[in-house]
Amino acid sequence: MDNLKEYLIEKGKKAQLAARVLSTLDTDSKNKVLHAMAKALENNMNSIIEANLMDMKNGEEKGLSRAMLDRLLINEKRILDMSEGLRQVSELPDPIGEITKMWKRPNGITIGQKRVPLGVIGIIYEARPNVTVDAAALCLKSGNAVILRGGSEAINTNKVVANILSNACKECGLPEGTVQLIETTDREAVNMMLKLNEYIDVLIPRGGKGLIQTVVKNATVPVIETGVGNCHVFVDESANLKMAEDIIINAKVQRPAVCNAMESLLIHQNVAEKFLPIIATSLSKLGVEVRVCGEGKKIIVSSTKDEEILKHIVDATDADWDTEFLDLILSVKVVPSLDEALDHIYKHGTKHSESIITENYSNSQRFLNEVDAAAVYVNASTRFTDGFEYGFGAEIGISTQKLHARGPMGLEQLTTTKYIVYGNGQIRK
Amino acid sequence: MDNLKEYLIEKGKKAQLAARVLSTLDTDSKNKVLHAMAKALENNMNSIIEANLMDMKNGEEKGLSRAMLDRLLINEKRILDMSEGLRQVSELPDPIGEITKMWKRPNGITIGQKRVPLGVIGIIYEARPNVTVDAAALCLKSGNAVILRGGSEAINTNKVVANILSNACKECGLPEGTVQLIETTDREAVNMMLKLNEYIDVLIPRGGKGLIQTVVKNATVPVIETGVGNCHVFVDESANLKMAEDIIINAKVQRPAVCNAMESLLIHQNVAEKFLPIIATSLSKLGVEVRVCGEGKKIIVSSTKDEEILKHIVDATDADWDTEFLDLILSVKVVPSLDEALDHIYKHGTKHSESIITENYSNSQRFLNEVDAAAVYVNASTRFTDGFEYGFGAEIGISTQKLHARGPMGLEQLTTTKYIVYGNGQIRK
Repeated sequence: MDNLKEYLIEKGKKAQLAARVLSTLDTDSKNKVLHAMAKALENNMNSIIEANLMDMKNGEEKGLSRAMLDRLLINEKRILDMSEGLRQVSELPDPIGEITKMWKRPNGITIGQKRVPLGVIGIIYEARPNVTVDAAALCLKSGNAVILRGGSEAINTNKVVANILSNACKECGLPEGTVQLIETTDREAVNMMLKLNEYIDVLIPRGGKGLIQTVVKNATVPVIETGVGNCHVFVDESANLKMAEDIIINAKVQRPAVCNAMESLLIHQNVAEKFLPIIATSLSKLGVEVRVCGEGKKIIVSSTKDEEILKHIVDATDADWDTEFLDLILSVKVVPSLDEALDHIYKHGTKHSESIITENYSNSQRFLNEVDAAAVYVNASTRFTDGFEYGFGAEIGISTQKLHARGPMGLEQLTTTKYIVYGNGQIRK
Repeated sequence: MDNLKEYLIEKGKKAQLAARVLSTLDTDSKNKVLHAMAKALENNMNSIIEANLMDMKNGEEKGLSRAMLDRLLINEKRILDMSEGLRQVSELPDPIGEITKMWKRPNGITIGQKRVPLGVIGIIYEARPNVTVDAAALCLKSGNAVILRGGSEAINTNKVVANILSNACKECGLPEGTVQLIETTDREAVNMMLKLNEYIDVLIPRGGKGLIQTVVKNATVPVIETGVGNCHVFVDESANLKMAEDIIINAKVQRPAVCNAMESLLIHQNVAEKFLPIIATSLSKLGVEVRVCGEGKKIIVSSTKDEEILKHIVDATDADWDTEFLDLILSVKVVPSLDEALDHIYKHGTKHSESIITENYSNSQRFLNEVDAAAVYVNASTRFTDGFEYGFGAEIGISTQKLHARGPMGLEQLTTTKYIVYGNGQIRK
């Protein structure tokens, strides 16, 4: 593309015009568009699947991993899931227009804080084409225009899908800047998007660590950082060990590739002798590689001669404490006290999700108070850090930064507020 | 300074350690420190004034403007104001620890959203040394560690003041990283601070447009943008013209150099003939230069032959509509309708503070709904956009961005939240 900069500014301008219209659109109208989008996806299944076949073919030729190809794949079932997703978003309460508080000042002015859209949101994501639909739906429902930049692997699918959504918007009378896709795979487009302060209010990157760091380090547009989770579970000396085992297995094995999966297990030394053999056995049976500290290894090795278990037991290296494996690998450390557990989490955690398993009241409170993370758990799996599990009905990502939104982000996190002030002639003294 | 980078990282590390302690400090302890700080300032008046004399002398030699020198000046009265400010902050409610909501999910986990400090806040500001005290007080009360970087003009004063505050913290048993000043005037220190993501959670620049743009454009640490206000007042055709006159004079003249002062006046054409001569007379008598559109000029010129008035009337240029004068200058435009007023504000406003003067219900509601700004007023002066006027009891600045905080920022805006989750063994299905 010759005039990439102009192309992006053009998109930015259209998005701003659309945002102005969307900001005052009533809920019924937005829901009508969501239903029209759903219908349009269903009516155009063949063209989506055809485009996706091209992406799949290219992906296979490029040697994408099976996991990657699976994320890329669109079939009839997945299209129906996407259109169902659109209809679900239409059922969610509209956050826009809520007056979160209102008060009167001594001079008689009445000040209200009103929830309004952010404006134009830029979403930068990787291989999964369903993000195109999800992001469009959530931005529309929250009154925002969206500029989408998907991964090059999914470019053909994304083009067709974005076009279908955009046409549905137009047919419902919405401006063409409502949902837009950057239709080039030129990486320079991302770099430019990161600095489009005049046209984009917020950027949300969704994807792996590399993508997120590129955005955070280079964007001048405000960013909501999502993602990396080096999550810990600490088994306190007073833990119910059966509960600890269930939670650890759930947090590690149920879906190891996601950011709220557990990556590191800390065990109080007073229960290590009893609990480590149990949990090492369970985990190794589930195919989990256990990278364990010296003290822990001694305990495990002296407890069993079963080669099937022992082959899963590996010496932990220093780097393991800082690694988000996103795989069936777990680092395990024996710690002498809650204090040491808190210190370890302070040093190695990524402030995503942390859990303590304990029956001790004071320790539970200390953990909740002292761990600095988006979500802190007592006696529950870290896997709950999720917009749906929290009851938000949707999720655009999990924020791991402290500004604006922290933890799972639903529709409300795609809004800002403005103050509306009713006076009758007041001037400042 | 040879090892500037190391120097900054050292400050960052100390700040992080302090932040960990401050995050769990109870309100009484924080208030005790604020009182100790106030006392310490009063006990060290002479050394502050001595250091300030050096800054004043350097400033005069450098040829700083009178306004700048006035902002730089510290005398006994101003020290007492600062210590009084510290005591006032101790009276404010502590935002930390509030559970903003708490709910139970069908699986039995109870999720609470708890207000917690941001962590380490970096404040970058210009000539006024009282910001050193204000910022330290607000950050401490909200449980944050602060790294201050003041203007080079005030370096001697800031060093002494920051040292007094920091010693007061130490004497109360707080870590030395609680309040820290960057003690070099090397500009490179600012550039490094902007990229200290590992140690600083949020940057807040306070100062002129140049400073703020430097921070926004170069920081990789999340920034809260404060400042620029090209604020409008629109006099609708149904306006109470006496009220309009009072509000316009207040918004323009009461303190022209601040961001919530009015910079541009829009007048509905149906009242222009009647109102423009009145307001032009009032403003010119107060020394305001009126930069007016062609239509408006005709009206004024044909209404008076008074040279005292006419010498204040100037032709507006296109650039005037986008200029934040921060002075006794006002751009004035006659518009044919509310729609045109809204369009003008959309094109030229900076989303800070906008006001409509009207007696028409529907127009008031349209203005409140359709103007995208931090604060939108009906029949009141734009000058009210201020933390104290809004009843927050404090102000760290006025955010003009949409992420995290918008409008006047008090203690609450220096916090984030974390989710605390009480379970009894729940795992994700």
